[in-house]
Amino acid sequence: MRDAYHEELDALSDKLVEMTRLVRSAMARSVTALLDADLRLSEEVISADEQINKIDTEIEETVFDLMARQQPVAGDLRTVITTLRMSADLERMGDLAVHIAKTARRRHPETAVPPELQSTVLEMGQIAERMVAKAGSVIASKDVEMGLELDADDDAMDRLHRKLFDILLSPKWKHGVEPAIDITLAGRYFERFADHAVTVGEHVVYLVTGQRPQEIIENS
Amino acid sequence: MRDAYHEELDALSDKLVEMTRLVRSAMARSVTALLDADLRLSEEVISADEQINKIDTEIEETVFDLMARQQPVAGDLRTVITTLRMSADLERMGDLAVHIAKTARRRHPETAVPPELQSTVLEMGQIAERMVAKAGSVIASKDVEMGLELDADDDAMDRLHRKLFDILLSPKWKHGVEPAIDITLAGRYFERFADHAVTVGEHVVYLVTGQRPQEIIENS
Repeated sequence: MRDAYHEELDALSDKLVEMTRLVRSAMARSVTALLDADLRLSEEVISADEQINKIDTEIEETVFDLMARQQPVAGDLRTVITTLRMSADLERMGDLAVHIAKTARRRHPETAVPPELQSTVLEMGQIAERMVAKAGSVIASKDVEMGLELDADDDAMDRLHRKLFDILLSPKWKHGVEPAIDITLAGRYFERFADHAVTVGEHVVYLVTGQRPQEIIENS
Repeated sequence: MRDAYHEELDALSDKLVEMTRLVRSAMARSVTALLDADLRLSEEVISADEQINKIDTEIEETVFDLMARQQPVAGDLRTVITTLRMSADLERMGDLAVHIAKTARRRHPETAVPPELQSTVLEMGQIAERMVAKAGSVIASKDVEMGLELDADDDAMDRLHRKLFDILLSPKWKHGVEPAIDITLAGRYFERFADHAVTVGEHVVYLVTGQRPQEIIENS
């Protein structure tokens, strides 16, 4: 049977998983808003971010309370501190989805994404969505192998990010500077979103194995 | 007389201040590298980042060790957790200086900054430098008023950031898409750098007063 303390840790883990669900939904909607120039959807993402921030604050309060009452050491201490960090990563990922939604809102009723970039941006959004869903599964399952997969997903995101710049810098680019700025920023938001998902995976891998992902790869 | 525990906390604070010094120097050199297309300076910033990361890791290890041995509660607990967070902010600011240095390196021997943007970029760099220096003073002095000033500095940065876009989007812009992408990203790096400096200030304000800066402003 789990004691009260470990039940509290489980509850924290559930809250992190709930954050990944909200962030995944925010990312899905912000990408659709961006591609379809959908003002209503972008407004939804912007106002829903409050809920993500609220859970982040709740997690922080619970962690401080738990540390003060239980004074965890060693592994348990690392777990609660890591929970704080994953919560901060997920909160930031919510902000990045909001930035994408705001890009859509700023250009409405036009779309910020010219036709020749739609498929690449869609793919970046889908990878971002998969990465945060995977981060949620990794938090829930403590599956190290799945945690390590996030690195490969991030490589796929980086390739798409480079492709974005290739298209922007191609002599065929006819849309001028303003859409190029929007796409440059959106690309950066996707890239950072993926980086934070990788970091969440790394935190779980470290909690389970005591090793950083790089060490595991080097030793395998 | 300070006990051993509070001496350790002071030593952590000194390490944070040392990080602000290294980050300030990185920012100063990366901006010069960017404006002058100075390859040697940009390489310096890129390799010096290791030192910043090393201090971040040392702070993290000391904090975990200290929490395990001393089991701080209440205010002391908040101090050590906040130290971890400020260290993470400063580590990230070092990365952002590296991103600026890499922009300079990528365009070398050309400069990434066209003449009509040089003064704005210089000013953004100077504000960034002042903000991290101020963050260091705030950490050392626990001066709440100075901590709150960082918000106004950030407003100045935001104004310059908007000016950057005005120039990029002006009909007089003759440099096409590639420099616009570089400047868009550099602008984002400056903006995020300033955000992290504000966060460091907020952490100190909260540690000293128990209030978030917004609450202080609302109640004053």
